[in-house]
Amino acid sequence: MTRRQLARAIKAAAYLEGDFVLSSGKRSTYYLDKWRFETNPELLREIVRALADLLPFPGPHRLAGVELGGVPLATALSLETGIPFLVVRRQTKEYGTAKGIEGVFESGERVVLVEDVLTTAGQAIAAAKRLTQAGLDVIRIIYVIDREEGADTNILQAGFRPAALFKKSDLGDK
Amino acid sequence: MTRRQLARAIKAAAYLEGDFVLSSGKRSTYYLDKWRFETNPELLREIVRALADLLPFPGPHRLAGVELGGVPLATALSLETGIPFLVVRRQTKEYGTAKGIEGVFESGERVVLVEDVLTTAGQAIAAAKRLTQAGLDVIRIIYVIDREEGADTNILQAGFRPAALFKKSDLGDK
Repeated sequence: MTRRQLARAIKAAAYLEGDFVLSSGKRSTYYLDKWRFETNPELLREIVRALADLLPFPGPHRLAGVELGGVPLATALSLETGIPFLVVRRQTKEYGTAKGIEGVFESGERVVLVEDVLTTAGQAIAAAKRLTQAGLDVIRIIYVIDREEGADTNILQAGFRPAALFKKSDLGDK
Repeated sequence: MTRRQLARAIKAAAYLEGDFVLSSGKRSTYYLDKWRFETNPELLREIVRALADLLPFPGPHRLAGVELGGVPLATALSLETGIPFLVVRRQTKEYGTAKGIEGVFESGERVVLVEDVLTTAGQAIAAAKRLTQAGLDVIRIIYVIDREEGADTNILQAGFRPAALFKKSDLGDK
């Protein structure tokens, strides 16, 4: 599947028109339903093969997926690359091992954060900061779609490096 | 990897001793940290290959993973089998498409619910009931480890069919 075919397949699967409230609080006349591309195994496999090209060299010790939408992407990219992954919870759970970051890691390891569709990147940046506070080195934040509403600038201003697979305008009709 | 090797690998990766409070509210002197086997891609792949043998014939139209621990398993089993998956949220989110079940499905489709480590199976049964209420036919609940504290009986009494990959006693030292 070419890059252009992949953009078309994502749009065909996941682009919805209507009146939506995004996780950032913004209203929008369209919504990219990440679940519609993440839960289709053929499409998910193509997406993570393309995401693998956004990994820096030398590669990270760990991938990290943000609860909840980043988890299928981190899982699939982990299976594709053989790199183990972490899950960053939105809130620390109160049972079991009571951590905000699930999985195994050591301080100083390089991590690439994997996300789905970013608007302002607020949740992604918060997750990256929590990984940093845990002693990890977040070397890149990679994500499937940039809605072109400030995500990349915000990530840079927070001191992290963004890499989007597609911008919203890449999903155009042409 | 044989079944016995897989049981040993899961125990080596995920069995922790200490004083834990489980999601069921029960206290326990041991904890099976599902994240330690789910976030290791080699081990995850072996687990879902074994889970695939627990799928009934004819197979389901969809898999379903319960937030949060069931999501990497459903993702990996989906990639392994080509069967698309759903994600059952614990609580309905308030933004975007505002549903409790993420992904695409049609009423009447057969679904297999995928879970990680079950104690009383309370959350798994609640998720299965929500799928049923959405018009889906939950034909089996498959899970990696049964802690042998009532999960299978409770699933049967709720009207669903359980199938565990391993019982806790399968992870013994022998």
